[in-house]
Amino acid sequence: MNKPILLTGAAGNLGRVLTKGLAEHGFDLRLTDVRPFPDTLPSGAVFEQADLEDGVALLRLAEGCGTILHFGGVSTERPFEQIIGPNLRGLFHIYEAARRERARVVFASSNHAIGFHERPTEDSGLLDVADPFRPDGYYGLSKAYGELMGRMYWDKHGVENVNLRIGACYARPADRRQLSIWLSFPDLVRLATCCIEAERVAHAVVWGVSQNPASYWGNDHRERIGWEPQDSAEPFRAEVQHILDDAVSERYQGGTFAAAGYSRTEPAPRETFALD
Amino acid sequence: MNKPILLTGAAGNLGRVLTKGLAEHGFDLRLTDVRPFPDTLPSGAVFEQADLEDGVALLRLAEGCGTILHFGGVSTERPFEQIIGPNLRGLFHIYEAARRERARVVFASSNHAIGFHERPTEDSGLLDVADPFRPDGYYGLSKAYGELMGRMYWDKHGVENVNLRIGACYARPADRRQLSIWLSFPDLVRLATCCIEAERVAHAVVWGVSQNPASYWGNDHRERIGWEPQDSAEPFRAEVQHILDDAVSERYQGGTFAAAGYSRTEPAPRETFALD
Amino acid sequence: MNKPILLTGAAGNLGRVLTKGLAEHGFDLRLTDVRPFPDTLPSGAVFEQADLEDGVALLRLAEGCGTILHFGGVSTERPFEQIIGPNLRGLFHIYEAARRERARVVFASSNHAIGFHERPTEDSGLLDVADPFRPDGYYGLSKAYGELMGRMYWDKHGVENVNLRIGACYARPADRRQLSIWLSFPDLVRLATCCIEAERVAHAVVWGVSQNPASYWGNDHRERIGWEPQDSAEPFRAEVQHILDDAVSERYQGGTFAAAGYSRTEPAPRETFALD
Amino acid sequence: MNKPILLTGAAGNLGRVLTKGLAEHGFDLRLTDVRPFPDTLPSGAVFEQADLEDGVALLRLAEGCGTILHFGGVSTERPFEQIIGPNLRGLFHIYEAARRERARVVFASSNHAIGFHERPTEDSGLLDVADPFRPDGYYGLSKAYGELMGRMYWDKHGVENVNLRIGACYARPADRRQLSIWLSFPDLVRLATCCIEAERVAHAVVWGVSQNPASYWGNDHRERIGWEPQDSAEPFRAEVQHILDDAVSERYQGGTFAAAGYSRTEPAPRETFALD
Amino acid sequence: MNKPILLTGAAGNLGRVLTKGLAEHGFDLRLTDVRPFPDTLPSGAVFEQADLEDGVALLRLAEGCGTILHFGGVSTERPFEQIIGPNLRGLFHIYEAARRERARVVFASSNHAIGFHERPTEDSGLLDVADPFRPDGYYGLSKAYGELMGRMYWDKHGVENVNLRIGACYARPADRRQLSIWLSFPDLVRLATCCIEAERVAHAVVWGVSQNPASYWGNDHRERIGWEPQDSAEPFRAEVQHILDDAVSERYQGGTFAAAGYSRTEPAPRETFALD
Amino acid sequence: MNKPILLTGAAGNLGRVLTKGLAEHGFDLRLTDVRPFPDTLPSGAVFEQADLEDGVALLRLAEGCGTILHFGGVSTERPFEQIIGPNLRGLFHIYEAARRERARVVFASSNHAIGFHERPTEDSGLLDVADPFRPDGYYGLSKAYGELMGRMYWDKHGVENVNLRIGACYARPADRRQLSIWLSFPDLVRLATCCIEAERVAHAVVWGVSQNPASYWGNDHRERIGWEPQDSAEPFRAEVQHILDDAVSERYQGGTFAAAGYSRTEPAPRETFALD
Repeated sequence: MNKPILLTGAAGNLGRVLTKGLAEHGFDLRLTDVRPFPDTLPSGAVFEQADLEDGVALLRLAEGCGTILHFGGVSTERPFEQIIGPNLRGLFHIYEAARRERARVVFASSNHAIGFHERPTEDSGLLDVADPFRPDGYYGLSKAYGELMGRMYWDKHGVENVNLRIGACYARPADRRQLSIWLSFPDLVRLATCCIEAERVAHAVVWGVSQNPASYWGNDHRERIGWEPQDSAEPFRAEVQHILDDAVSERYQGGTFAAAGYSRTEPAPRETFALD
Repeated sequence: MNKPILLTGAAGNLGRVLTKGLAEHGFDLRLTDVRPFPDTLPSGAVFEQADLEDGVALLRLAEGCGTILHFGGVSTERPFEQIIGPNLRGLFHIYEAARRERARVVFASSNHAIGFHERPTEDSGLLDVADPFRPDGYYGLSKAYGELMGRMYWDKHGVENVNLRIGACYARPADRRQLSIWLSFPDLVRLATCCIEAERVAHAVVWGVSQNPASYWGNDHRERIGWEPQDSAEPFRAEVQHILDDAVSERYQGGTFAAAGYSRTEPAPRETFALD
Repeated sequence: MNKPILLTGAAGNLGRVLTKGLAEHGFDLRLTDVRPFPDTLPSGAVFEQADLEDGVALLRLAEGCGTILHFGGVSTERPFEQIIGPNLRGLFHIYEAARRERARVVFASSNHAIGFHERPTEDSGLLDVADPFRPDGYYGLSKAYGELMGRMYWDKHGVENVNLRIGACYARPADRRQLSIWLSFPDLVRLATCCIEAERVAHAVVWGVSQNPASYWGNDHRERIGWEPQDSAEPFRAEVQHILDDAVSERYQGGTFAAAGYSRTEPAPRETFALD
Repeated sequence: MNKPILLTGAAGNLGRVLTKGLAEHGFDLRLTDVRPFPDTLPSGAVFEQADLEDGVALLRLAEGCGTILHFGGVSTERPFEQIIGPNLRGLFHIYEAARRERARVVFASSNHAIGFHERPTEDSGLLDVADPFRPDGYYGLSKAYGELMGRMYWDKHGVENVNLRIGACYARPADRRQLSIWLSFPDLVRLATCCIEAERVAHAVVWGVSQNPASYWGNDHRERIGWEPQDSAEPFRAEVQHILDDAVSERYQGGTFAAAGYSRTEPAPRETFALD
Repeated sequence: MNKPILLTGAAGNLGRVLTKGLAEHGFDLRLTDVRPFPDTLPSGAVFEQADLEDGVALLRLAEGCGTILHFGGVSTERPFEQIIGPNLRGLFHIYEAARRERARVVFASSNHAIGFHERPTEDSGLLDVADPFRPDGYYGLSKAYGELMGRMYWDKHGVENVNLRIGACYARPADRRQLSIWLSFPDLVRLATCCIEAERVAHAVVWGVSQNPASYWGNDHRERIGWEPQDSAEPFRAEVQHILDDAVSERYQGGTFAAAGYSRTEPAPRETFALD
Repeated sequence: MNKPILLTGAAGNLGRVLTKGLAEHGFDLRLTDVRPFPDTLPSGAVFEQADLEDGVALLRLAEGCGTILHFGGVSTERPFEQIIGPNLRGLFHIYEAARRERARVVFASSNHAIGFHERPTEDSGLLDVADPFRPDGYYGLSKAYGELMGRMYWDKHGVENVNLRIGACYARPADRRQLSIWLSFPDLVRLATCCIEAERVAHAVVWGVSQNPASYWGNDHRERIGWEPQDSAEPFRAEVQHILDDAVSERYQGGTFAAAGYSRTEPAPRETFALD
């Protein structure tokens, strides 16, 4: 695949890791972000500052690209009005661009799209990508919306897309929960590379998590893109396993995002009916 | 339940049917729409013109209400920019209002949230509300988003909600597809009444369809709200069964909404992988 | 050329004339306007309501089209804030659409782009399309801007465009000035047809005026599109030649548009220097 | 002329040069910019932060001024949505202010308004201000629009204006092209001073370029404002003449601005017709 | 005073009465409204459709005017978001226009600026214009804001203004409260005429009420403008005196506007302290 | 009163003083600002970045709070368009939040709401809070508007509020005028504490000024909240009493804010009528 790759959110943490890693791999990178790019541009990369809400500019940026790595937008829980523009409208622009270019979308989804599933116990199985969405906030909702937009553009327009349910992607895990959901930077770069190079992906959902023995997550479509993670969070266990969330948050996959904020005083009474 | 009921979209087709039916039932109705109300107000109802995008006004309209029947917003496929305001931002305002009031939301979802599932054949079973979303456009996406927002507000804040996957609600069915998905006006009014009066609904999803023998849809949560439809589309069969969609649209539950528009030339190549 | 033709402003006076005329000619018409289409749709035409300010929607409407007849936007002098959106931003969207589709743009420019040239006298020659722009207001400025945008998209992107400096296109002339600048409806339809069917037009400027003996206008690029007007305003002379503008307006090609409005008390002192 | 002078874009590169130079000349300066002013305010100058899009604020800032030096707005090629507000709407506010104050406008136009004219060769003559606009992008279009707005306000309202087609105004030339179009800072200050002090300018267009032997540009209206540049780029020739644009850009006056961006693969096919 | 008069809200009820009355009086009228003017334009009047939120357009409309009769904006209680634009921002534009033109403003204020004062009883005196504002809603707040803006523009810029605290201006009184606050159409026209023709008004406040024996209102600045009302509501007493507000509303000058809406269940507990 | 306290404008000068002082007093603080909080958060305080224009977010921030200290918004004279959003719309959001929570509002009003009253002389008395508003600009108008909104929400909804007419609150007085109007930081913290802890305040207005012998201000409602200032500006007299405003500004309470800006050339002619 020799077409250029458009990377949104290039000035963010993961965007900078991907820029470096993918440039070393020799890809022709077109970078964008609403902020300036903070690093030296690697050879073979161009950067253009743009707002995800400017659809016509985004469509133009994507011209000729074969893959769009969509890592832009708000990347944590925020009031709704700060999410709707970059995350919801921005997604629409990304998918319109991909439809026009017959490009593939690789979307940085999140565990917060399923954050209200409980963490697995001895007797419960792992979570499967076929399990229903249970977003834990406006951010998680924007990620579920993005996956469904990918579903619709595939069904309706044949736009291929891989939705990466990224756990926690940092240089190293920060607490016990991340022993389950940590994604190493090298595994992220390999994952993106597989997404770009896979021959055929249709609408795929992949857990963006390293080879962690404590993982919450089971079945996904990774065989379709040919990716196997190679790192593990386990070597960091002694260092972080004592770092826990509060009792309510500890119960859910999404951790503290699942807390209701100022008005939350107790676990929500959702055990009355078994809904899933 | 003696608290007032807020009905959005009161000036629309279904809103007018509900206003009349629920007023006859004796409910205390607070009506709103972005358009003026076209009918004589029934006794016991008040109307206030408001825009779903004006969140503070909407929160105030909902004060003291026990149920919000959310039938407002754009009700058919439109360009994204016409959907995002009333349907996505509007939903957020409705759920914030419900959380503040500890009110129940009854949301007019749509078959277009699952419009890309194929219509059932001899050997395929009926569609279940546990089957994944397969929206057929921006409108269908807004409905899936609304159901997931209901899921999140229940999980996180204990806001109860019933999501009505309304088929085609008209005075009578208009074509062969509607023999399967038609909802009669009296069944709609009874359905809304059950949603208001049910003791406990949690997060429920109910097919909004009459007792049609040709129905596409199976299991849902109707027992939780105590509703049974009483009408059937079958008496209209002779009149409309010859009225078909084009070949592509005929394949999907969403009918013509599943067609891609100007750029669609053939069924999308989604059969390569079995994704569901 | 069998590709569909996108016509903006289809619900306007000229748009309706063109819809009827071009449909009779057998063209595959895609119509749009911010208003609903008021007439019965001719066979072979589709209509989609859209706002010229919604760029992504406009780009999608234009997909697959070979020609864009851009007759939309504000069509008379208005305060600047009413012009900037539909006329300036709208033009950008039209040209981005044309660039993406490698389509040709036919732009309804106006005599008001050159309205401050004086009307020809015995000794002065006719106006040439190479003469400089002298817009007579914000509307005329938007038309000059549109012609220059066409110039730029041709120079930079190879987008072909014909700019029709339409005089006064009505069923019949209304005053003495229109004896010079009248364009009959049949001549308009023939002109649009030539613009669509011409093999090669580059960046062309054509006076949109019938075969009027009293015409103000001389040389243009009509030979490049193969158009000859066939009607004349002269038969209406007796009826309208006594209907004049006020003295100041009578001096300029743009007529009353050249008057300055509330603050205009005398002809502007522009004779101090010969600038053209 | 003792009235205050309003300078927009005062915090920009040229604005800061002008502030210093004009203050030394004893002018009464009113400075504005959307950014804070970065330097120590010279005696006799006031600064007020304002947005060119806030028309009523701008009209008030201009009260009592005799000249508006309009150097504000976006000063390079950017996506259209970033140009339309400050450059197009901003221009309207400047001209409305000038009309109200019967002030003169000195507008920082640009060579990019004519950037698609080819660079002169042995046999071609120099470019004349009467030659047609050939903008090389959205920025160049905004400059052509500004000159035409000046034309209209002069014709219609008697607002005098001088349009400075500034080449490249830096401390020293940076490449071979700038040997032709370089404007020294002292020549800029003298030019602005002449524009302020000239008795009568009507609508004038002046090349903003020093006394460069390699200049691309010929005739203009400088005699009307009494300006003669005194510096030359030639002393810098040895240092920069080997620094060239790419082959396509080298052909045009506008240099790299004339390249089409991501979608440009070859010179546009505009030689088919001789249009000028 | 021969300068033109700008009347905003010309298409409203009072605007139409004023247009007719003032035109008969021979004034040179410049009319504007956001809606089209519904009547035949009287001789000597011009109408231009404009939005009070478009400040630059409004400043231009006011050029040369000696008086601005500001009757535009929302004229009843509405959600805040519908008030802020036309009423608050609109007022600013009116006063900026008046400052520029050294024109006088005649502002249609309202009894709702003081609607929370109780209706006078046997022992209480009448209300004086020196009594403090007690607005009864967002509409009343916008009127108090307008009067204070008039106060500030007079203090700071010497802009004269008359603030008409209009009671209820209809063809005839509609209920008992209007026996106190009714203003006849002829009295309104005479009042406006006096405001235009008075030699010196400074910042004045005048009760816009006919010569009603049951009036709630006492001292004001009417002698400064030389107006005496000539009509009385008393002849309508038998017809309307039995038409009362609800008990809470009956207590306040502002009538039903003083009710709190959905959340109001009892008179507010403001009797704890004597605040006025 | 153990409910949390919402403090807007927490990152501003007074907000930071209050945060420190109130946290030491043991209050449960919820802080917000449109900017990040620049200091270390004191124990018992949380901070959430939010925009006063985002009403739904603000309503949520206020949930459960018993007092809202509203110190956010623009805090000096600025063009109207910069005031209307944070100060006018922001106030509405604060009062809607308070009404919902049955919380008390403590509003940072300003001497600029009465800035056009003359400074007291030998024979004139001190200013009373019952004296009429005489705002000295758009900022002062926004403060008068805020006090009137408090008046209305108390009259209509029983929302208690204290309006602090803050003079000049700095570490020490800066000029002679501030010898009269200075408020020390400790007095500010004590004042806020009293406002929070007072049992009943209704609608109160309090001069926010220390125990300065030279104070301009007399009677207010401080006894209702139980506050007595303890500091005095007098010790700073020698240091600053020679620092005066210009002659015009020296006349008014609001000081330089009362000057008209570019268009003010002489004291406004307001002495013709005695209006107060």
